[in-house]
Amino acid sequence: MAERLYLYDTTLRDGQQTQGVQFSVAEKQALTVMLDRLGIDYIEGGWPGANPTDSAYFEAVGETRATMAAFGMTKRSGRSAQNDDVLAAVLNAGTSAVCLVGKSHDYHVEAALGISREENVENIRASVAHCVAEGREALFDAEHFFDGYYSDPGYALECLRAAHEAGARWVVLCDTNGGTLPAEIGRIVSEVIAAGIPGDRLGIHCHDDAGMAVAGSLAAVEAGARQIQGTLNGLGERCGNANLISLIPTLLLKEPYASRFDTGVTVEGMKALTRISRQLDDILNRVPRNNAPYVGASAFAHKAGLHASAILKDPSTYEHVDPSTVGNARVIPMSNQAGQSNLRQRLSEMGIGVEKADPRLSRILEEIKDREDRGYSYDTAQASFELVARRELGLLPQFFEVKRYRVTVERRKNKYNRMVSLSEAVVVVKIGEEKRLSVSESMDETGSDRGPVNALARALAKDLGPYQDAIDDMHLVDFKVRITQGGTEAVTRVIIDSEDGEGRRWSTVGVSANIVDASFEALIDAVTWKLMRDGQGA
Amino acid sequence: MAERLYLYDTTLRDGQQTQGVQFSVAEKQALTVMLDRLGIDYIEGGWPGANPTDSAYFEAVGETRATMAAFGMTKRSGRSAQNDDVLAAVLNAGTSAVCLVGKSHDYHVEAALGISREENVENIRASVAHCVAEGREALFDAEHFFDGYYSDPGYALECLRAAHEAGARWVVLCDTNGGTLPAEIGRIVSEVIAAGIPGDRLGIHCHDDAGMAVAGSLAAVEAGARQIQGTLNGLGERCGNANLISLIPTLLLKEPYASRFDTGVTVEGMKALTRISRQLDDILNRVPRNNAPYVGASAFAHKAGLHASAILKDPSTYEHVDPSTVGNARVIPMSNQAGQSNLRQRLSEMGIGVEKADPRLSRILEEIKDREDRGYSYDTAQASFELVARRELGLLPQFFEVKRYRVTVERRKNKYNRMVSLSEAVVVVKIGEEKRLSVSESMDETGSDRGPVNALARALAKDLGPYQDAIDDMHLVDFKVRITQGGTEAVTRVIIDSEDGEGRRWSTVGVSANIVDASFEALIDAVTWKLMRDGQGA
Repeated sequence: MAERLYLYDTTLRDGQQTQGVQFSVAEKQALTVMLDRLGIDYIEGGWPGANPTDSAYFEAVGETRATMAAFGMTKRSGRSAQNDDVLAAVLNAGTSAVCLVGKSHDYHVEAALGISREENVENIRASVAHCVAEGREALFDAEHFFDGYYSDPGYALECLRAAHEAGARWVVLCDTNGGTLPAEIGRIVSEVIAAGIPGDRLGIHCHDDAGMAVAGSLAAVEAGARQIQGTLNGLGERCGNANLISLIPTLLLKEPYASRFDTGVTVEGMKALTRISRQLDDILNRVPRNNAPYVGASAFAHKAGLHASAILKDPSTYEHVDPSTVGNARVIPMSNQAGQSNLRQRLSEMGIGVEKADPRLSRILEEIKDREDRGYSYDTAQASFELVARRELGLLPQFFEVKRYRVTVERRKNKYNRMVSLSEAVVVVKIGEEKRLSVSESMDETGSDRGPVNALARALAKDLGPYQDAIDDMHLVDFKVRITQGGTEAVTRVIIDSEDGEGRRWSTVGVSANIVDASFEALIDAVTWKLMRDGQGA
Repeated sequence: MAERLYLYDTTLRDGQQTQGVQFSVAEKQALTVMLDRLGIDYIEGGWPGANPTDSAYFEAVGETRATMAAFGMTKRSGRSAQNDDVLAAVLNAGTSAVCLVGKSHDYHVEAALGISREENVENIRASVAHCVAEGREALFDAEHFFDGYYSDPGYALECLRAAHEAGARWVVLCDTNGGTLPAEIGRIVSEVIAAGIPGDRLGIHCHDDAGMAVAGSLAAVEAGARQIQGTLNGLGERCGNANLISLIPTLLLKEPYASRFDTGVTVEGMKALTRISRQLDDILNRVPRNNAPYVGASAFAHKAGLHASAILKDPSTYEHVDPSTVGNARVIPMSNQAGQSNLRQRLSEMGIGVEKADPRLSRILEEIKDREDRGYSYDTAQASFELVARRELGLLPQFFEVKRYRVTVERRKNKYNRMVSLSEAVVVVKIGEEKRLSVSESMDETGSDRGPVNALARALAKDLGPYQDAIDDMHLVDFKVRITQGGTEAVTRVIIDSEDGEGRRWSTVGVSANIVDASFEALIDAVTWKLMRDGQGA
């Protein structure tokens, strides 16, 4: 029989300590649904009373399969647990679990709280006992536990025992400053268990300040702890918390964990991980980390030529797990390090079958190589790559032709004597025999200028006749600019990421010494790819 | 006596396998200087013969304190090491060390190479022996070693022994697919040492596919390995390699490593880590990871109110190491205490003395903070920072005023029916009472269009009256564009690097939703700073 290992998510509480992160109630609710569906055991929603958004969230959140936990701190000295208004606000959130942080490091008790060591132990005991008496599942987060254990192991253990004996379901060892090494975490967890706190009542809470929060969490589990606290994408104060998105696949797919433990997350549920990770980035308006373990866009991208050709024979040669298990996908980028077999593989994934000896294969490779020499890059711009290949194969209709464009940026004083700028673009396209002129200003919702590329995109999107529905359904999600080398001189490379109503995402590239030109080229590719995918007639 | 632990950097080789990364020779040289100054023991520069840039780099790279290594693969079957042209190209790079990758996993020998197990062992032996005979320090990278050890430990060890007995200085255990857990790495390294390969001849090469490359490297060191291979910022194929930027401070600052090992990096040299990490991101035009261990902008940022107030009493309460040890800085929101003394320091470096209690100091800090919220960044744009401070202090003359500008980009067919583009700019400036209009096209030596920013720069430089000499003496050396967050919406940040006849270099920044506007702002700052430095009268 597999042992139960519990996952405790604190994205909504500790994750919100990330610089620049402030969730709205609606965002917290959306994340709750994601976490609950994933099968997380505990969702820590915030600190009610300390933060108005958190209080509102606990009022708004509905039924969950997961155990909802409110966070707070142990009662202050000089009042009873019943009369501590901070603690009362936490209990008033009505969650079935309550997690209270308290000190376990003698120095912090004296320097930060300025109370006696005995008072602190009593505060822990009384607070946990009060929560238990109120019918709640109580957790005790032992702040700075590892540093405290180095300083005075007897006192640190005394704090844990106070919580344990008062009825805490879980005593959580927090490496608050994030600097404890995994081997040390393992050793100390073993000693805590030997000192009488059972492993199935022990949790671990790691921070990533030395880049080892995931390894530290696993070291604690190996030593006997049975609850892991962490966050999605490793959000959290400073360098963040242990990343549950990295931990879950390791626990479910790798030995000795896979056959030893059951978690609330199933192998089927884990397929949502990549989507969940990116949705969180979407909520935060962050560019996802390409190299994130398991879920990054590059996590299964094989650039080295030798790797890519072996992958075609057997994916396990250069993949530690199957990307589909976490909802991710294999990427074999077209770079000058890759050969014809990669190309055929790429094309077949696009639904294009080409015979092994087809001379067009080497023509495509030459065209790609020539473009890369001029500054193009197709590592990420897969949609532009597909267009190059289809053009070479005669599989790309000419949807429309851009005859000319003109864009003007002007900056001058307005009638209120303030400097303002305005961009205006004219685009002339020909669809079949029909010529269409469109003009547009660049403007956002507030009426301010978004620049020449925005003006061009608007003018182009204004009137594409038969394609109008397809183009109305797409929008720009990211725009990257890099000055690079094209032949002997510096050129500008622009990469545009687009998305449509079905959530499809694609990347296109443009290169020119003129940044407006480069952007326009990437834009035209984005539109063309969309029309091609939608199966628009030429 | 401390034991020697060696650091081997492969940013220039394995790091280049990162999706989207392609270093130029000049970039590789700049990185070499950074690595060499840092005190890295080995710099692996690339695969000469396989990649024209790598071959050119080895020709161009000068003397280094570090041992330079060329990468290649063991000889192929059916020819001698002497007659293998791939191996010859590697040796021809003339580096004192040569690192050859070869198979140590029986399945890969049969499936990928299609040769017998014995042939593979002989290829390893003969290749290493040949390098040693040529007077080189030889390293053997045992690809897929851990997977190979699971599959057939006897054969995996036989491959290592072949390299070791042929005279390899280092046998490197590569976790090529990045999926091996740290505890397993530790166990297997111990078994390898017990099987007769001494730890001081063993290296470890980890990948971050499970988010544990740093922990895996340390587990190998704990088991006895004495060389760590990794990359700056953890660059590398898929999820990247072990991050040396995270490993170095852990090795130098934390026990048991700090007192047990010496590395080529000194405590003093380590202060460059934050700068090195960001310079690499600059070269790649990547947004630095705020939450990167040790060097991230948020790595010592204390957002939680309780943490921030404790930090003011004693920084060790919420910091695992002192940020200055890695050249990073503490960030405490709402605390101008630390901010003001930093600012005075920066101003005095610019030759501006300001008294401690001067109220203008907090005005400058507020202005900088407000601008950073709008998307500006002054980490590199020191010249723009100086202009903000001087303006606030009343120490900046108004050299000229830009009344308005207009720039047009047009793309259409020329008389030869080829699509061409042309940019034209008009700039109107006022110097004293005199108004000057200039117009310029954008054009390089070959007559082709360089875009709107080039046109604006030319028009501005065409007629600046009394300042003409100063402006003729400067030119643009680099131009970086980044889409970033300004308040609630995406804005474009442009950083321009300029240089003058005396070799002085300075960086300026501009921010706007309109990329042309942002560029123009950075351009105006660049000219203004130059006039200020030249002591031009207003």
